[in-house]
Amino acid sequence: MSGPTHSLTIRATIPARVGMLGEVMAAIASEEALVGGVDIVRSTSDTVTRDMAVLVRDDLHGERVRIAIAEVADVEVEGVADRALLAHAGGKVGMRNRVPVATRDDLSMAYTPGVARVCMAINEDPERAWEYTIKGNSVMVVSDGTAVVGQGDLGPLAALPAMEAKCMFLRELAGIDAFPLPVTQRDPEAIARTVARCVSPFAGVHVTDVAAPTCFELGRALAPKVDVPVFQDDQAGTAAALLAALVNSLEFVGKRLSNARVVVAGLGPGGVATVRLLVAAGVGEVTACDSRGAVHTGRDDLTEDDRWVAEHTNGARRTGTASDLVAGADAFIGLSTPGLLDADDLRRMASDPIVFALAMPEPEVARGVADELVRVYATGRPDVPNQIHSALAFPGIWRGALDARARTIDESMVLAAAGAIAETVTQTSAPSADRVVPSIFDPELVPNVARAVRSAAEAAGLARVPESVA
Amino acid sequence: MSGPTHSLTIRATIPARVGMLGEVMAAIASEEALVGGVDIVRSTSDTVTRDMAVLVRDDLHGERVRIAIAEVADVEVEGVADRALLAHAGGKVGMRNRVPVATRDDLSMAYTPGVARVCMAINEDPERAWEYTIKGNSVMVVSDGTAVVGQGDLGPLAALPAMEAKCMFLRELAGIDAFPLPVTQRDPEAIARTVARCVSPFAGVHVTDVAAPTCFELGRALAPKVDVPVFQDDQAGTAAALLAALVNSLEFVGKRLSNARVVVAGLGPGGVATVRLLVAAGVGEVTACDSRGAVHTGRDDLTEDDRWVAEHTNGARRTGTASDLVAGADAFIGLSTPGLLDADDLRRMASDPIVFALAMPEPEVARGVADELVRVYATGRPDVPNQIHSALAFPGIWRGALDARARTIDESMVLAAAGAIAETVTQTSAPSADRVVPSIFDPELVPNVARAVRSAAEAAGLARVPESVA
Repeated sequence: MSGPTHSLTIRATIPARVGMLGEVMAAIASEEALVGGVDIVRSTSDTVTRDMAVLVRDDLHGERVRIAIAEVADVEVEGVADRALLAHAGGKVGMRNRVPVATRDDLSMAYTPGVARVCMAINEDPERAWEYTIKGNSVMVVSDGTAVVGQGDLGPLAALPAMEAKCMFLRELAGIDAFPLPVTQRDPEAIARTVARCVSPFAGVHVTDVAAPTCFELGRALAPKVDVPVFQDDQAGTAAALLAALVNSLEFVGKRLSNARVVVAGLGPGGVATVRLLVAAGVGEVTACDSRGAVHTGRDDLTEDDRWVAEHTNGARRTGTASDLVAGADAFIGLSTPGLLDADDLRRMASDPIVFALAMPEPEVARGVADELVRVYATGRPDVPNQIHSALAFPGIWRGALDARARTIDESMVLAAAGAIAETVTQTSAPSADRVVPSIFDPELVPNVARAVRSAAEAAGLARVPESVA
Repeated sequence: MSGPTHSLTIRATIPARVGMLGEVMAAIASEEALVGGVDIVRSTSDTVTRDMAVLVRDDLHGERVRIAIAEVADVEVEGVADRALLAHAGGKVGMRNRVPVATRDDLSMAYTPGVARVCMAINEDPERAWEYTIKGNSVMVVSDGTAVVGQGDLGPLAALPAMEAKCMFLRELAGIDAFPLPVTQRDPEAIARTVARCVSPFAGVHVTDVAAPTCFELGRALAPKVDVPVFQDDQAGTAAALLAALVNSLEFVGKRLSNARVVVAGLGPGGVATVRLLVAAGVGEVTACDSRGAVHTGRDDLTEDDRWVAEHTNGARRTGTASDLVAGADAFIGLSTPGLLDADDLRRMASDPIVFALAMPEPEVARGVADELVRVYATGRPDVPNQIHSALAFPGIWRGALDARARTIDESMVLAAAGAIAETVTQTSAPSADRVVPSIFDPELVPNVARAVRSAAEAAGLARVPESVA
């Protein structure tokens, strides 16, 4: 069963008689909805009008609750507001001016005649754009809307609320100015050309919510067309967060990365990128599977990216389903479909099993099933411990990349980010079952990741500016 | 001679002896530079380190001043900072978050799982994007960088500081979130296709700093590709500001618009748009000229847009230069080249001549020449009265267009804007020689223009939403 995801505010006018509020609460409870805060909006001698925050599962559930309240004698429901929708009203990001423009003198400086000199300086030396325009701190968030927060292909306009959220993360967590730019094209080469034509005011391109295989092809098409990093949060961001969680989980259960057997289920954007990063990190044995079973070089239905996976994993050429593959595995990483594994599957894993179940909207292994059988359990949900989310990685990665004016973000930088995410936990205490990753809001997280990423960019020769002297 | 446009801050360490500061001031004066504020940065028993604001004409002049100061005995120049460049450091605009993202609850609301419902709602009904995303209040500022603030073709990246300034105006004056998007293409059809592919998060497209004839062709190419207004500030914005200034100037000198003889010099973006608007406004007689002389239907060197001008103006088929054409004219509007007219030309105009000289970097008629001979004189400069600038028009036009969710901005809306600009002056007092347009910062200006534009959009059937009930 899906948890409550709708937070409604129901306004009702209730007779000012003893016991009436209790009757309304009972009506809400009869529909198994949860009540949060209850505020008084206004009152007369006869009535009290209240706003009640009610958690419901979906629109239908909300409507049932509304009817149940309205059926209480003498109670009138005045309106139902949806807190989540209200939170998005007018959009979640906007612009701000960084210098004043309130007087003629401001105008002379920020616009004509002052601006002409800045424009000419950049015309003479384009590198000055990093210093005298928004470029140095700006990231384009781009999507075709084909894989929108677990809802599939909703199109570019409907992807915008999710893209705005990515911009919010970058602003709030990393002080970066990111603008959402959904594009109406579907062909990766065409998207890449459009992005390249608009990229000049940006120091980086953040690709999000693009389905496989377009996302892989887009990454390859974009790289030669732009001279700033291209980063895909659903790929490298998710992979870095998962690797960090794996490192700390293995430390918690006393196992070594280089001996660990890890099964990755799902070869969408996150799955392929995770397999690549686990291999690069030196995980002992990685085996991957998709909906058709284990990936190995003997299969003839593999895409270009799947083939890379086949050639670099599953040395034992195992076959079978995820259920077969997890036998004896130290860790299971799911980026696939809800309910993929059951209790019996978990019992066949190695001792102290680690399960990261990131399927949306429900995990591959339900919490109730995992509680008894698994040593470390993590999901993508924000409302329980161990949220594994690309937002652990990408704000700090972008901060580090921008600080270095990096030309690209390579694997060494993503590995450095994963290490810094893991260390953000261990620098204060040993990892525990419910703390294998830090909170997204841990104030040390972004600075730690940014420092590590900037150093890695330096070491890889990908930085345009040298590390600032401490 | 060009006025001082560079404001330098020169830091120098000066011996703490009587008369030394005077020697430094004398050195600056010897180079004919002006001194603004002089602050003490730090002092020892022997020295005082001061920051001196110095106005200079150009880089060379600044360097001469620096040397002059350094040549004073025992004075050491520590550095020279350029205030105008500093005002642009890091760019002039940035992003802000409109809702909090500081707790897990915020995350649930603004991102998963809450955001999925908003995305799905927009997928079901794209019109909801106006309500639940940034779209409703966002404008794309686009340019190819071919006509950057009077400096010509500097390219897209070098146009960015000027484009950021337009975004600042929209934010500060009209509460609109505008993002600058320079594009690397030159062909108007190609630019239009790129804009159309990225336009979904925007409620309008603001074209700026594009040279003729690309700007005209881009306007025609874009209109059928996007379902939001396309507005060119160098065209319609300048035209609306000029028409407003003309209306108030004619009122001031006691002449009627329908009888007025007006000469427009220069058929770049602003010139053609101004001629079109003057004709639409019912100006008695309009005659236009370009660098080859008066425009009339007998010329065989006209572009498509020049030909429209030829067919709708100069009924008398006058020929000759701007100097010939102004004989007997009530008003001269210059959007051409510095120093086009001299004192003799002005003497041949009708009584109480009106001169709007908007050429950059210097006007068609120098202030010194105009002072004695002209009744109303206006330029594009921000540092003297009567600044005629598209920023008088475009913030209010966009506010009105966005409030109406307009599908386009047509001529009736631009005419309404010109009327509202003019009335912003006359609603408080009769126009005077040094107040034919309001200040860009007049707090009544944008609301007046926005109201008029929204009403015009309504009347033209171009509004997506009905006027809000007052």
